[in-house]
Amino acid sequence: MPKIERKIKIKQSRIWKKVSAEIISIGTELLLGEVTDTNAAYLAGQLPLLGIGLRRVTLVGDNLERLNEAFSRAWEDCDIVLATGGLGPTEDDLTREAIAKMLGEELKVSPILEQELRAIFGRLHREMPPHNIKQATLISSAQAIPNPRGTAPGWWIEKGKKIMVAMPGPPGEMQRMWEKEVMPRLQERLHKEVILFRTLKTFGFSEAEVDEMASPLFSLANPEMGIYAKPDGIHLRLIAKAQKREEAEKLMAQGEARLREIFAHYIWGTDSDTLEGVVGTLLASKGLTLATMESCTGGLLATTLTDVPGSSVYYKGGFVAYSNEAKIALGVNARLIEQHGAVSLELAEAMAEAARLRLEADIGVGITGVAGPDKLEGKPPGLAYIAICDSQGKRSFEGNYPPVRLEVKRRATTHALFLLRQRLLAL
Amino acid sequence: MPKIERKIKIKQSRIWKKVSAEIISIGTELLLGEVTDTNAAYLAGQLPLLGIGLRRVTLVGDNLERLNEAFSRAWEDCDIVLATGGLGPTEDDLTREAIAKMLGEELKVSPILEQELRAIFGRLHREMPPHNIKQATLISSAQAIPNPRGTAPGWWIEKGKKIMVAMPGPPGEMQRMWEKEVMPRLQERLHKEVILFRTLKTFGFSEAEVDEMASPLFSLANPEMGIYAKPDGIHLRLIAKAQKREEAEKLMAQGEARLREIFAHYIWGTDSDTLEGVVGTLLASKGLTLATMESCTGGLLATTLTDVPGSSVYYKGGFVAYSNEAKIALGVNARLIEQHGAVSLELAEAMAEAARLRLEADIGVGITGVAGPDKLEGKPPGLAYIAICDSQGKRSFEGNYPPVRLEVKRRATTHALFLLRQRLLAL
Repeated sequence: MPKIERKIKIKQSRIWKKVSAEIISIGTELLLGEVTDTNAAYLAGQLPLLGIGLRRVTLVGDNLERLNEAFSRAWEDCDIVLATGGLGPTEDDLTREAIAKMLGEELKVSPILEQELRAIFGRLHREMPPHNIKQATLISSAQAIPNPRGTAPGWWIEKGKKIMVAMPGPPGEMQRMWEKEVMPRLQERLHKEVILFRTLKTFGFSEAEVDEMASPLFSLANPEMGIYAKPDGIHLRLIAKAQKREEAEKLMAQGEARLREIFAHYIWGTDSDTLEGVVGTLLASKGLTLATMESCTGGLLATTLTDVPGSSVYYKGGFVAYSNEAKIALGVNARLIEQHGAVSLELAEAMAEAARLRLEADIGVGITGVAGPDKLEGKPPGLAYIAICDSQGKRSFEGNYPPVRLEVKRRATTHALFLLRQRLLAL
Repeated sequence: MPKIERKIKIKQSRIWKKVSAEIISIGTELLLGEVTDTNAAYLAGQLPLLGIGLRRVTLVGDNLERLNEAFSRAWEDCDIVLATGGLGPTEDDLTREAIAKMLGEELKVSPILEQELRAIFGRLHREMPPHNIKQATLISSAQAIPNPRGTAPGWWIEKGKKIMVAMPGPPGEMQRMWEKEVMPRLQERLHKEVILFRTLKTFGFSEAEVDEMASPLFSLANPEMGIYAKPDGIHLRLIAKAQKREEAEKLMAQGEARLREIFAHYIWGTDSDTLEGVVGTLLASKGLTLATMESCTGGLLATTLTDVPGSSVYYKGGFVAYSNEAKIALGVNARLIEQHGAVSLELAEAMAEAARLRLEADIGVGITGVAGPDKLEGKPPGLAYIAICDSQGKRSFEGNYPPVRLEVKRRATTHALFLLRQRLLAL
């Protein structure tokens, strides 16, 4: 993705210069490739919000010497050091020891932390294992950061103009600590300009088409724009910066309005929206119900729809009709299969209708196609038909996706959700 | 996972001492958190196979100075430096420049590489953009590594006793280059002892139980053992090392036999096996067909089963009966719901039977439960019932999972697949 990289580069060089950070991810399991480090990517995505420039990410094992080396170097090179991992209770959890060593300070048990730790075990009706006492230690320049999701508090250290933060490795604990504790404190210390992010999610165009269509906005310095190909379509990300929030918000609103003019209803959501969530909200707000019948997607549409909490309100259920007999047993006319084949617009429509009637839903969706690896009825993997039917009639669509089984399932599911959204907007 | 980390630690310290490596992942998109670096985890998992100890992973942006700093440090500290990314055709792709700078060599266009590159564009009927010529450059100590999946060849550099390899960033290109080109060359250079890996996958016990049961094997130095909690159960990983392959295979076979004695049929697969694949193979080999009816898993069982290529041979189809009306419409006796509730052993059995009869399959599976976040019929999220029915009768099971919606769906699906495997083994 050379073009995308170029755009990101421009963004980076403009925005964050002054404050630099290094992320250190700790754990031998990372160096063995047993676990992929997602903490660094999470934190890396957060730092631009604070106007902090990430200089480097380092992954190190549970080894005191290597940790000390990594911490010392980061402490020397950067303004802020963010460490994750190595705060557990075992011998191998050496983050506290390494920080103490680097700063030449002594580890001491904090009576308050010890009390809190014993209280956690008390609530679990368990004896605290003796080695857990490690998790109640501090050095004099460190403040404990609360961790309601686990037994390991974080450490916040400020010395001179430098800040070091140690957070636990489990992503759920780390992310909560970052959002509720660390990010607000950093924001307070940095008093940076306001930086706003906004992602607009499109479906229906290729990355190159989106790039071409959005090109008028590339000349804008503020908000800046990036284009990203994602599983649910092409995302446009805007970054607006200003001294004051209102000013940044105004710039962002202007940029967003221009993109909405260009992409209109092909923008299906923003920021953390999911297609299944957007579809669910539309169904619920219109008081409509849904039923599905899938062949090539094999239930992926059903399970994606039901990932949304509360989906039982509008989703009546679905059929996975993998064989022709199953399709017929579920109400699809056998003659249609003979005439048009199982992979056809006509059959997608018949499946949508059968699902709708069978489950007495307002809307039915049918998907049939070839997931591969083999051809079906002489039709190639990657071809699929999607139909939507409701009280006003039937609509059907052809999709052509990369001929890789899981990719066909995913793309056809996303496509169906997008078409369903379009239909719901019109109803 | 403190205990696991300890075990990994032991493994690491024993096996790989002599040859050290650093992985450098290159790309500003990594430092912005836009892309999670999976290349480092992939390579980290490969290095133990070669007996190479990973000293550190560093992520750096597309910046000549930072790249030069990272390369110089790695080149000084380690025997092997593996770089991924930054080999594209744009100005921001600086890996070649940084290596040339570090080694004090000059970049020159290789006529052979240029010819190959022009041939690639020729086959695509496209003019080669002028800046792509970068991808045909070399320094005198670098050999080009073929990359049939892209336009960027890799670089292989040997100087003194050190080796540096630069590979492209897209995972598909990188992994092929690693497997087909880089790993064999490294293996040849290193003449290491043979190291074999084997993973045994269990289901039905907690991590602590597996730990306890497998404890007799922890005293073995060879094969060494690690325990890992994974979405599809608890995995036991064995590592056997010897001068000769036969010897390593013998040690591995002994270790595996002991674990199979202990865990018996709770080991459902090895290495790259998936539960849905194992179930599919059993169904196909016995010539049996399957149908499903799901409530709380919302289609996840169906889509997991149909992820397997060729599943249409044995999977007749399924129902997602999210509402009580849907269950009744599909053949579940309404009186059963009144008597026992929708979340009950009785209903799971009725659903399994209805699916089986409706789709004329040999085996039916029914799942009902509470995915959450809210209670259902006064029953808590995380409770589910799974039933399997076949010509010989019905069996049903209760599952209690962590009360998080997507977790309930995933755990109940895995549990159902495991129970189905057990039943198929007995049939």
